[in-house]
Amino acid sequence: MTLAANAVDSLADLRVDGARLWQSLMDLARIGATDKGGVCRLALTDLDRQGRDLFSDWARQAGCELRVDAIGNIFARRPGRNNALPAVMTGSHIDTQPTGGKFDGNYGVLAGLEVLRTLNDAGVQTEAPLELVVWTNEEGSRFVPVMMGSGVYAGAFTLDHALGQRDRDGVSVRDALAAIGYAGAAAVPPLARDGVGAYFEAHIEQGPVLEAADTVIGVVTAALGQRWYDVVLTGVEAHAGPTPMPLRRDALLAASDLVRAVNDIALAHAPNARGTVGWMDVFPNSRNVIPGRVSLSVDLRAADDATLSAMDVALRAAVDAAARRGGVSAHVEQVVYFAPQPFAQALVQAVRDGARDLSLSAMEVVSGAGHDAVYMARVAPAAMIFVPCKDGISHNEIEDARPDHLEAGCNVLLRAMLAQAGVAA
Amino acid sequence: MTLAANAVDSLADLRVDGARLWQSLMDLARIGATDKGGVCRLALTDLDRQGRDLFSDWARQAGCELRVDAIGNIFARRPGRNNALPAVMTGSHIDTQPTGGKFDGNYGVLAGLEVLRTLNDAGVQTEAPLELVVWTNEEGSRFVPVMMGSGVYAGAFTLDHALGQRDRDGVSVRDALAAIGYAGAAAVPPLARDGVGAYFEAHIEQGPVLEAADTVIGVVTAALGQRWYDVVLTGVEAHAGPTPMPLRRDALLAASDLVRAVNDIALAHAPNARGTVGWMDVFPNSRNVIPGRVSLSVDLRAADDATLSAMDVALRAAVDAAARRGGVSAHVEQVVYFAPQPFAQALVQAVRDGARDLSLSAMEVVSGAGHDAVYMARVAPAAMIFVPCKDGISHNEIEDARPDHLEAGCNVLLRAMLAQAGVAA
Repeated sequence: MTLAANAVDSLADLRVDGARLWQSLMDLARIGATDKGGVCRLALTDLDRQGRDLFSDWARQAGCELRVDAIGNIFARRPGRNNALPAVMTGSHIDTQPTGGKFDGNYGVLAGLEVLRTLNDAGVQTEAPLELVVWTNEEGSRFVPVMMGSGVYAGAFTLDHALGQRDRDGVSVRDALAAIGYAGAAAVPPLARDGVGAYFEAHIEQGPVLEAADTVIGVVTAALGQRWYDVVLTGVEAHAGPTPMPLRRDALLAASDLVRAVNDIALAHAPNARGTVGWMDVFPNSRNVIPGRVSLSVDLRAADDATLSAMDVALRAAVDAAARRGGVSAHVEQVVYFAPQPFAQALVQAVRDGARDLSLSAMEVVSGAGHDAVYMARVAPAAMIFVPCKDGISHNEIEDARPDHLEAGCNVLLRAMLAQAGVAA
Repeated sequence: MTLAANAVDSLADLRVDGARLWQSLMDLARIGATDKGGVCRLALTDLDRQGRDLFSDWARQAGCELRVDAIGNIFARRPGRNNALPAVMTGSHIDTQPTGGKFDGNYGVLAGLEVLRTLNDAGVQTEAPLELVVWTNEEGSRFVPVMMGSGVYAGAFTLDHALGQRDRDGVSVRDALAAIGYAGAAAVPPLARDGVGAYFEAHIEQGPVLEAADTVIGVVTAALGQRWYDVVLTGVEAHAGPTPMPLRRDALLAASDLVRAVNDIALAHAPNARGTVGWMDVFPNSRNVIPGRVSLSVDLRAADDATLSAMDVALRAAVDAAARRGGVSAHVEQVVYFAPQPFAQALVQAVRDGARDLSLSAMEVVSGAGHDAVYMARVAPAAMIFVPCKDGISHNEIEDARPDHLEAGCNVLLRAMLAQAGVAA
């Protein structure tokens, strides 16, 4: 690879076309565009088909060979000089939330496309083949589970399980895929897992960290593990007037203590831990009745399993303490577990190097949300590149990102992919 | 009155018939009886008419003259020897909550009836006339405002306002009264306010204090004043995963601090102050989204206005503190104010004396809830007698009370009324 590395060095001045990338983002965003400037392009709808068709046209025009697997993932291949080498893959998704934006997912796909176009324009042949992938139904808005396409690919759940899922109208994934013409024939993926030598995914951060730090490139070291819980606190509902304070068993008071405790648990494991109560149901929820029952969700996240386990222990102690103090009973049930997922050190370094070579400001960050890259990291070396989004807002029609940041992230992707794939001398 | 007082003393052994009182409670409870042992007899429904008809029959059989006013209050008069004297009045209501019990309101009416029956059986003529009243729509379940009949009588709002109120089906109080045949002709009440010399109301406590203290008679000294508030806390909704703790503006976290603070404010003004957050709405109320907006109710109660005002000041400071700590904005609006209502000292003493004369355990309590007596106290001397209810539970089909307690409260009512009305020698 020395020869190839030298060849990569010779391309040190190669840059993507930021204006072309932006134009492609805007063109794709027209499909399912909303009045408020966002995009509604739910997985496996006709709008999704239109988006897939546009991507497929672009990928073919870029010289790619396209294959679709049985869950509708689209693989666009740009051959290398030595196609026996594992592919260097990049991609993301083009389905959106119902009130989604132009960049979430779409940026990762079109940044990958821009890398291929740039290589074409410069006449660069890579040693290893490149693969640009569009994963099916990352968002999970219409069909659960989320990250469906990458989850099937990585073996997180079975193809049959995914195909059998239904939307609220009773339509199955299987039928929806067939209806839009993206049900690939082969149950066996067109690209074997061990055919992937590296997976990169560029994405808007969907959080406020980079913007707050005035930094362009997020070098994503890991995806946070998650434990989700249902908690029910049961006291006694009673009239707010006739019931003196010492005789109360107020479930909302106990719940409030728990909300504060969840926050404190996350702060105790700063900077990467998270603790959130996002959902709460108060019964009977009447102005002058002391709440007799409160149900609430707890979402704990951390970058490593030891921390996540310590937070679990602390949470259960906090529930007990809040219940005891409030004279209520408590039930805690863990309902979701995602293991923390470190990214591949060599690929993380490639991202770091790319930012350094381009003199871009960069910092290590963790991914708090799920991404297709998190499933891919289970079966192949993987890493992510984050760029800032305005006010950290995503999953919202006002989601926005700066063209120069998107271009910068795409250049880092180019460098990282070239470094992995090598360049034919 | 010395002569009359002596005559009252001569009736020291007079007792009500507890079994007859219980039987009347059970008979009335058949009208609107629910499968779970409660009563659903909403104001101005045909079931309410059946209850009113049964009461009216009983009152006539007890020798009373009945009049109905324009808001449907029923006045049953037992003449005294000197009918120029102001009447000694007792009563309550017979409408119930949708899932109400057998005792709330009904006890006060039928305890009054039992007093009259007892006097009849013993051939006792009082000096002053007695009045037994059934107030219209105390519960407010079908028509607001609550305590409608006593409110009109006491001038808390106008007759026209009350008659114009409509239920969810658009039926007005005016039409509902006419439909059940209880729309009195005269806009002027059949009994002028200054014709009421004393008003007593017996009631189940609807709270846990007497039961916890193993005490039979609650000598009610005052009704708590109330301030109700709407509070809105506005932060920023954001993804639970990608948003580090220090960058959050979590409205639910601020709300939780406020719930604890409301509790502390009430505890700081023990034993009679109350502070309750009974209602809370979390937006967007999604498991993995940091809440961006929380609306909640605050209900503060105290026995005197100085305390209530101090609690108001403390609440506003607590809202500011919670908002500042959480980095959210806050809006507070007072939506309801009821002034604290002390009861008439002489009548409270009459209740205290009655319990003492009967060797019943007794303690001073406050009424945390609203009652018809609270409006009556604005226009006439008034007092209340509480008896325990099981587990402090009311407004519930499992509401329960002990026959011996109900009998004891009725005997106290008898003594107190006799002491006020005097007995013809």
